[in-house]
Amino acid sequence: MSTHTEGLSINLATVRQQWNLREAVEACARHGIRAVDPWRDQVAAIGLADSARVIKDNGMRVTGYCRGGMFPAADAAGRRAAIDDNKRAIDEAATIGAECLVFVVGGLPPGSRDLADARRMVADGLAAILPHARAARMPLAIEPLHPMYAADRACVNTLAQALDLCDQLGVGVGVAIDAYHVWWDPDLAEQVARAGRDGRILAHHICDWLVPTRDLLLDRGMMGDGVIDLPGLRRMIEAAGYRGLQEVEIFSAENWWKRSGDEVLATCIERFMRVC
Amino acid sequence: MSTHTEGLSINLATVRQQWNLREAVEACARHGIRAVDPWRDQVAAIGLADSARVIKDNGMRVTGYCRGGMFPAADAAGRRAAIDDNKRAIDEAATIGAECLVFVVGGLPPGSRDLADARRMVADGLAAILPHARAARMPLAIEPLHPMYAADRACVNTLAQALDLCDQLGVGVGVAIDAYHVWWDPDLAEQVARAGRDGRILAHHICDWLVPTRDLLLDRGMMGDGVIDLPGLRRMIEAAGYRGLQEVEIFSAENWWKRSGDEVLATCIERFMRVC
Repeated sequence: MSTHTEGLSINLATVRQQWNLREAVEACARHGIRAVDPWRDQVAAIGLADSARVIKDNGMRVTGYCRGGMFPAADAAGRRAAIDDNKRAIDEAATIGAECLVFVVGGLPPGSRDLADARRMVADGLAAILPHARAARMPLAIEPLHPMYAADRACVNTLAQALDLCDQLGVGVGVAIDAYHVWWDPDLAEQVARAGRDGRILAHHICDWLVPTRDLLLDRGMMGDGVIDLPGLRRMIEAAGYRGLQEVEIFSAENWWKRSGDEVLATCIERFMRVC
Repeated sequence: MSTHTEGLSINLATVRQQWNLREAVEACARHGIRAVDPWRDQVAAIGLADSARVIKDNGMRVTGYCRGGMFPAADAAGRRAAIDDNKRAIDEAATIGAECLVFVVGGLPPGSRDLADARRMVADGLAAILPHARAARMPLAIEPLHPMYAADRACVNTLAQALDLCDQLGVGVGVAIDAYHVWWDPDLAEQVARAGRDGRILAHHICDWLVPTRDLLLDRGMMGDGVIDLPGLRRMIEAAGYRGLQEVEIFSAENWWKRSGDEVLATCIERFMRVC
């Protein structure tokens, strides 16, 4: 393993416009990157068996699998369908050897303005799939998403809230801490320490917050191009006992998704070394 | 006072592209609206004395004055300049008879990634102007802004954090609770109750969160067009003892700012009656 890339994982959303899963994994290997986190649609595009094979053949560690979640639905049938789909995601994660399944839990059901109710649906959904996850020995990583996604993506919006959910659910559930989603939180230091004490930190995602941010979803920055104190967050997370990798996840429709995949990976490595 | 508009105030940013302060106040009066909240640039555009006169002549209540704040700066001279400017804002607020001065506290200074430091600058700045505010009997309303503004507008991002600041600063400081900024907060009910217990709720702003939101700053929705449970929030705030008005504040570059001011005000009244 190259010392340049030790500790680095690439979430494959970062190069989703450039490569399919096979191409992305092979490119990571060429760049000396030894860990990835693929998305379900990327796995589906080339098939689960082939995905597992290309990951194994390239000796890739799989720091996570994106994503489970999207539990809230307008009716019971929709919620049951989400639960079934999440069980399939657990099986897929196990097949590709993922270290955890990452959850974007879902926002308000169509027509609803009841966040508390959506949050109950999330807790219920996670509880419903937890026996399946435990049987598969697949840790569930709840990712609190930035509050600007509360309506349409995830109604779990702070690390404290995610950890309260973990406490409620018990063994087999933890958190994915993504710098982009949590950097603003005045309660961050306290909650990272709490997450560490309870052994709940399953993943650490990085990118940067750009000023200005031109799109709520697809304008995330390369590490160093924004305002997040990434070394500070890393020290906080490591002090809490986390010994896993840092995983770069950048959605960037107008910038990084338009560049060559090789340039993106080379930049990830350079910034990871210099900034993080 | 028209029963249709009792309890309603218009933040004049809502019609800033259509009218100057005089025109906006006179239009509110025509529509039976008896309270406004002007911005400093709107006051400056027609002059402080004329602003005070047109407000008085039209019998307008002034539910707030926008805005003080922007305390963090890269050097001591910049922070002193902000403090001086905030003292002038206090004097202006007193001159127009505002019930409070609303604070957008400021984000990271240029080049900084140190949110904790910015937050200290905010606390120091507020402490520095507080004697002036107390002498002028002008309540300071800290407005926690949505976390998506932490970098560039306000590093006070939750009601809990704003109330901690109030506790630290003492008498003469409270909060402005804006639905747009706080609706997502899993800790909202508890913190609204806390704010009420301490008599800290100075203002209640309303608008709506649109799905999708196309711009971080200028795509706020008319009440009823988004996903915020505005009646639920109103009940929560009233149960906490608040007896003030609801103030409509909508920044909407591509929709409401492009319509006639009269249509905007009529819609505010209709939605206020039907939705809030």
